[in-house]
Amino acid sequence: MQSISDDYLTGFVEGEGCFYVGFSKRKDLPLRWQIITEFHLSQNPGGKKVLETFIKRLGCGYIKLNHPGSKRDKTFVLIIKNRKDLSQKLIPFFEKNHLQTSKFEDYLIFKKTLELIERKEHLTKDGFRKIVNLVFSSKRITHKKYSKEQILCSSETICKSRLR
Amino acid sequence: MQSISDDYLTGFVEGEGCFYVGFSKRKDLPLRWQIITEFHLSQNPGGKKVLETFIKRLGCGYIKLNHPGSKRDKTFVLIIKNRKDLSQKLIPFFEKNHLQTSKFEDYLIFKKTLELIERKEHLTKDGFRKIVNLVFSSKRITHKKYSKEQILCSSETICKSRLR
Repeated sequence: MQSISDDYLTGFVEGEGCFYVGFSKRKDLPLRWQIITEFHLSQNPGGKKVLETFIKRLGCGYIKLNHPGSKRDKTFVLIIKNRKDLSQKLIPFFEKNHLQTSKFEDYLIFKKTLELIERKEHLTKDGFRKIVNLVFSSKRITHKKYSKEQILCSSETICKSRLR
Repeated sequence: MQSISDDYLTGFVEGEGCFYVGFSKRKDLPLRWQIITEFHLSQNPGGKKVLETFIKRLGCGYIKLNHPGSKRDKTFVLIIKNRKDLSQKLIPFFEKNHLQTSKFEDYLIFKKTLELIERKEHLTKDGFRKIVNLVFSSKRITHKKYSKEQILCSSETICKSRLR
């Protein structure tokens, strides 16, 4: 059996990977929203070996059942949540190994969001708005729990300005 | 931008490829069933370049819209149906570039079926039965239009023997 190369892993991520940026309501935070950044890579049990190889290659991430309660869905998911791991391990991997489909757009939004967070810009209204606009600029968005308007308006005491 | 390597394409196929063996009713054929062998590789418009690269690499296959009538589903699919192409171009690719997930099992069943067809064994009752058993031996079958019993019984004038 051949070893699993970086190129193989990149092709694998095209189909099964997800660069997720989401927004979660958090009343205790000044802007009322938490920004979630996560990388997911799903696979059925027969492909768990690939997830394990990716974790070893990156030096971060963990594997869990995608739907622990389900009797039917036995898929696994590799998760990376730690922002340092995302910035210092995941991003450099994809800077070296280029995604070739429109998943590359998701990756760029993900990367830019991490950069803004790293510079703590997400803690300011302008920086937060920049991230929301970035995420909703994707042509690939099909469904989000909250609309851009819901997020931006409730992050300011009074929603004054018209959204871009 | 990097070139798309064989390793990348192999990882890509893990997620998006399908080695399909199916059975279609054909009253005009002696055993009443036609065996369908097709390779499919699906991708949204943003990944069409990868499908085109794979066609170029293999020297066979064509691309069509997955659901031409649909306004919502704009995915493309690379299809290889020609048995000579499957045996002489697709199979050698995956003999050289090994699949690493349980998709490898689908590949082995696909390859074995093609070999039996190449030796014209599918035209005999025993050979046909061998292929049906092979396809239904997969643990990964979740849904088939016809059951093993339906296919085997109606391929013989009288269904004498109990299925293995």
